[in-house]
Amino acid sequence: MRLPRHVGFIPDGNRRWASARGMAKEDGYAHGLAPALQLFDRCRELGIDEVSVYGFTQDNTRRPSAQTHRFREACVDFALEASRRGAALLVVGDDSSAQFPPALARFRRRQGSGMKVNFLVNYGWQWDLDGLTAQGSLRSADVTRLELIVRWGGARRLSGFLPVQSVYADFFVVDDLWPDYRPAHFTQALQWFDRQDRTLGG
Amino acid sequence: MRLPRHVGFIPDGNRRWASARGMAKEDGYAHGLAPALQLFDRCRELGIDEVSVYGFTQDNTRRPSAQTHRFREACVDFALEASRRGAALLVVGDDSSAQFPPALARFRRRQGSGMKVNFLVNYGWQWDLDGLTAQGSLRSADVTRLELIVRWGGARRLSGFLPVQSVYADFFVVDDLWPDYRPAHFTQALQWFDRQDRTLGG
Repeated sequence: MRLPRHVGFIPDGNRRWASARGMAKEDGYAHGLAPALQLFDRCRELGIDEVSVYGFTQDNTRRPSAQTHRFREACVDFALEASRRGAALLVVGDDSSAQFPPALARFRRRQGSGMKVNFLVNYGWQWDLDGLTAQGSLRSADVTRLELIVRWGGARRLSGFLPVQSVYADFFVVDDLWPDYRPAHFTQALQWFDRQDRTLGG
Repeated sequence: MRLPRHVGFIPDGNRRWASARGMAKEDGYAHGLAPALQLFDRCRELGIDEVSVYGFTQDNTRRPSAQTHRFREACVDFALEASRRGAALLVVGDDSSAQFPPALARFRRRQGSGMKVNFLVNYGWQWDLDGLTAQGSLRSADVTRLELIVRWGGARRLSGFLPVQSVYADFFVVDDLWPDYRPAHFTQALQWFDRQDRTLGG
């Protein structure tokens, strides 16, 4: 089976998952952590070169502080544990803002070795593109072209996820919510990806 | 029903359609013209403000000249007929290249009145983004944010289609090939769009 070199993950649906269980919306984020680490391990086992993961965006920080506090916390937990397990971790996002977790500042330059993990934290597509005018390169310039993007939670949109690296990515949507992640979701995405042609417009 | 203000169309599958009928691949493009005009008329009837349509890309011009000749021809036919029926037509693409049809040069600035039609001809996502470094704005700066993108032919990817305007677009894929367009495809896309939430990350 032809594996994608670089896969993007959009783990959406934490709040809907919590609401469906009568929990406060913000309680959903913590339930996204174990699945994220499980998927991280799976990607390493498969030998995937690079993954990009949506943590939270600048737009997301307009939510109530009970939520922003909890998703920041979940992101820090994921990043530190992924780093501890062994990853070449780069955090991509606007670290000039108070929304950016100080604990992740050192990962604004890639640290560690192993599978490349690009973790989008306080990321914004406009912030990213503004790099082209401000400095002549994307702020995500160290992130390569995506081949496959997998989104949980049913929405069929990119929601600002790495627009330049996504230009030729195949887009697979899982209707289940992210905390309901099962390994079969990713297996199905990979099998589907294997059946897609790759002409790149030629 | 809540209609999208701006819809993108990726009419893919002309070559596969022709091959499946034992025709030469390049004979497929001409069969995409009548559906395109039918869909154009439908959008006007519905009162949609703006549509963006993938004609061909700079990547597509690497194909055999029998194909490039025919898709250029189909694009000119569509643009002139849409203009004749009444549209505010803007052609977006690199007109400094021999691949750009001279007959469309006058539409590099929007001409006419009515529904806004942005037609991508010899378009390239990189060419578009290069505008940010070269001139401080996208080369597609006159194209607004997309709300819905409909792609025919089954592929679940943007293939470089207006990456900046697509950041929050809902993406609907029709498995049928473009020359097999039926009005029901677009009706289904609109009904599906009406059921999507629009939080824009908030």
